[in-house]
Amino acid sequence: MIPHLKTALTGPLLSLEKHLILEMANIEHWFRTQWLEHTAPFYASVDLRNAGFKLAPVDTNLFPGGFNNLNPDFLSLSIQAAMVAIEKVCPEAHRLVIIPENHTRNIYYLKNLFELQNILKKSGLDVRIGSLDQTILEPTKILVENNKSLLIEPLKRVKNRVVLENQLLGNFDACAILLNNDLSAGTPEILKNLEQNVIPPLNAGWVTRRKSQHFKAYDKVVKLFTEFIKVDPWLINPYFDHVSHIDFLARLGEDELSSKVDQVLHKIQLKYKEYNIKHEPFVIVKADAGTYGMGIMTVKDGDELKKLNRKSRNKMAVVKEGLEVSEVIIQEGIYSEECINDAVAEPVVYMIDHFVIGGFYRVHTTRGKDENLNAPGMHFVPLAFETSCSTPEEDESPLSTPNRFYAYGVIARLALLAASFELETYDSIN
Amino acid sequence: MIPHLKTALTGPLLSLEKHLILEMANIEHWFRTQWLEHTAPFYASVDLRNAGFKLAPVDTNLFPGGFNNLNPDFLSLSIQAAMVAIEKVCPEAHRLVIIPENHTRNIYYLKNLFELQNILKKSGLDVRIGSLDQTILEPTKILVENNKSLLIEPLKRVKNRVVLENQLLGNFDACAILLNNDLSAGTPEILKNLEQNVIPPLNAGWVTRRKSQHFKAYDKVVKLFTEFIKVDPWLINPYFDHVSHIDFLARLGEDELSSKVDQVLHKIQLKYKEYNIKHEPFVIVKADAGTYGMGIMTVKDGDELKKLNRKSRNKMAVVKEGLEVSEVIIQEGIYSEECINDAVAEPVVYMIDHFVIGGFYRVHTTRGKDENLNAPGMHFVPLAFETSCSTPEEDESPLSTPNRFYAYGVIARLALLAASFELETYDSIN
Repeated sequence: MIPHLKTALTGPLLSLEKHLILEMANIEHWFRTQWLEHTAPFYASVDLRNAGFKLAPVDTNLFPGGFNNLNPDFLSLSIQAAMVAIEKVCPEAHRLVIIPENHTRNIYYLKNLFELQNILKKSGLDVRIGSLDQTILEPTKILVENNKSLLIEPLKRVKNRVVLENQLLGNFDACAILLNNDLSAGTPEILKNLEQNVIPPLNAGWVTRRKSQHFKAYDKVVKLFTEFIKVDPWLINPYFDHVSHIDFLARLGEDELSSKVDQVLHKIQLKYKEYNIKHEPFVIVKADAGTYGMGIMTVKDGDELKKLNRKSRNKMAVVKEGLEVSEVIIQEGIYSEECINDAVAEPVVYMIDHFVIGGFYRVHTTRGKDENLNAPGMHFVPLAFETSCSTPEEDESPLSTPNRFYAYGVIARLALLAASFELETYDSIN
Repeated sequence: MIPHLKTALTGPLLSLEKHLILEMANIEHWFRTQWLEHTAPFYASVDLRNAGFKLAPVDTNLFPGGFNNLNPDFLSLSIQAAMVAIEKVCPEAHRLVIIPENHTRNIYYLKNLFELQNILKKSGLDVRIGSLDQTILEPTKILVENNKSLLIEPLKRVKNRVVLENQLLGNFDACAILLNNDLSAGTPEILKNLEQNVIPPLNAGWVTRRKSQHFKAYDKVVKLFTEFIKVDPWLINPYFDHVSHIDFLARLGEDELSSKVDQVLHKIQLKYKEYNIKHEPFVIVKADAGTYGMGIMTVKDGDELKKLNRKSRNKMAVVKEGLEVSEVIIQEGIYSEECINDAVAEPVVYMIDHFVIGGFYRVHTTRGKDENLNAPGMHFVPLAFETSCSTPEEDESPLSTPNRFYAYGVIARLALLAASFELETYDSIN
């Protein structure tokens, strides 16, 4: 099923979606030529927001953690895409180690890990899981659900390789290492200077990555794309700005942040006027490095940032794994007008290599449509996309499920291409 | 659903299927390394026969004509595979012309054509259909079923390119030409020395191709594969021999054919003895070049060939488009022990590039299990595979649907690899 859009879709988005369906052959040709020159990340997920008048990515995750939320009917699509990815990145690989996040008590994450391992096994690899978690001292079997369990083994460094030592199953010297850990805590010593192929490269972790760099790259992608399909770039691109050297606890940089927030709000206001949109503009202020929706604020007036109470400042100051926030991105807030019953729903699109393999909605009953849906402790209900994102029907309404999903797949792939541009930047720095 | 096997599967096939499931990671790795060195055909279908004790390909079609018989739930798998194929063969292509068979009155073939066009459109190409049929003088719209129609346009040669001329839709100068016509009638002048990319290459047509060449290549593939997975090659490979310079009408070459048939029958008999199989050996004698199951005979004794009546000799002497038969292949007959109710069922596996995209059973109520199911006028019922061929489950029985289909996918891909070897041979001749 596709969530019902509350707005009457007659505005710019409807015409954008129509345009994407009609231009499909040209769009696919455009992507094809882009992927001739740029390398897609091994995998990624993109959070989209659909405001009815605007459809844009708000976050691109290079270590996706929701494979368990995808429609199981399309498992074979993921397997096929993984086959292509492996052929490109490590065609000779036989054995692969997945390095997961450390939170092995999160059953949803474990289910994700199980599905990821399942996809990679079926795409033709011996796959085992090697953990960085210091509390995993020996191979540990964890029940995921009935008949499904994971074996998590401690990762060991031997010279320039990481290996698994297991008396029962035999030792395991992988040809390649797949990160499903975003390295929020920094790049672990054990992973430095490995002769094994690390996928994605270490600089895709949050040690190097900045959201503002991603959206700078996305600007470039959108420029190229909209010049060619002739639409207003703003319809698929959120405004953003960036502040470095901020210290929420010491109250340093607040003035700069506040004034930049007002500038972004002003730009949004002008666009709302142009399109006759009655909403109140808002921005999302969030850590420029990091994930899991910690350190995130909805702001409707720059002044709010000067009046933050202690609790809010503490919340903004650190993200996952205690990483301190010294840089933030100010991102145009996009109202989420997609609802299932009365719950706000945010589409998440999954990709392996440059293929859209599916997606799901984060459905959240207790949050407003101007809030971030990927927040800590947030209990969303995942609702898998019913159809694939690659089967648009020209003859049907742009509102039909396959056409809506095709549009999602196009925008998500633009963000994926931006991630590719972004990783190239980090490569050239290193 | 998976057809119920009448035999109690405790013999060699069960252990072969078990072996394939257990060795999956190694098998996929083996295929991966093969595809690094060899180029898969753009698309192909492989007819398999499952005797309970033996599972093998009996025919490999490089111009598959049953895309309409695949499970529509897996359309996205075909689209994704076509995207990969296009990226490899013609990444810059924007516009594609499909050259179909001429039998535009066969509704099943038209449905196939519609689905093929649909897959290629959704993989991101402008696709039109350009016919060689001399009776198609202008763009002709043909209704395939409710709301689905095909536009078939006459193919024109302009200098070194083929184009479509259409006042209404505009002229169409394709970047690439996809053959869905097996060129049984010879290579048409209009297709010779084109500067456009022709896919598959012209020498994949029956002018050049010989079934015996294919099975010679398959011998090589099976040798490599079985040395590595350690099974008796015969379990996945039909014996065959070949006779050239035969003339059924003038009764030339009958003795040679008869004695070679007896030799193949004798070899089968020895294997049946080794495996304690109680069936009576038989061979299929068929045209070495050509398709559509014309010119095919089931033979259980070489003497039968010396006593052919006029009607049988006429039947063997010509195949599709009046092509004369001067070469035949003698192929070990494989009993089809797969049945749906009381009907014999033959699995057909479909591939695009080196990916298995699905398959179906040819279910035939009026034919015996030692007969060819792809015969002229034959009214089979296609039964799409319910699951994909890429989702084996190690914990389940080798008889379970996904595991059976995985085995089919492996054997079909061996035949595909053989086609790749075979096309390399023709390339080196030309």
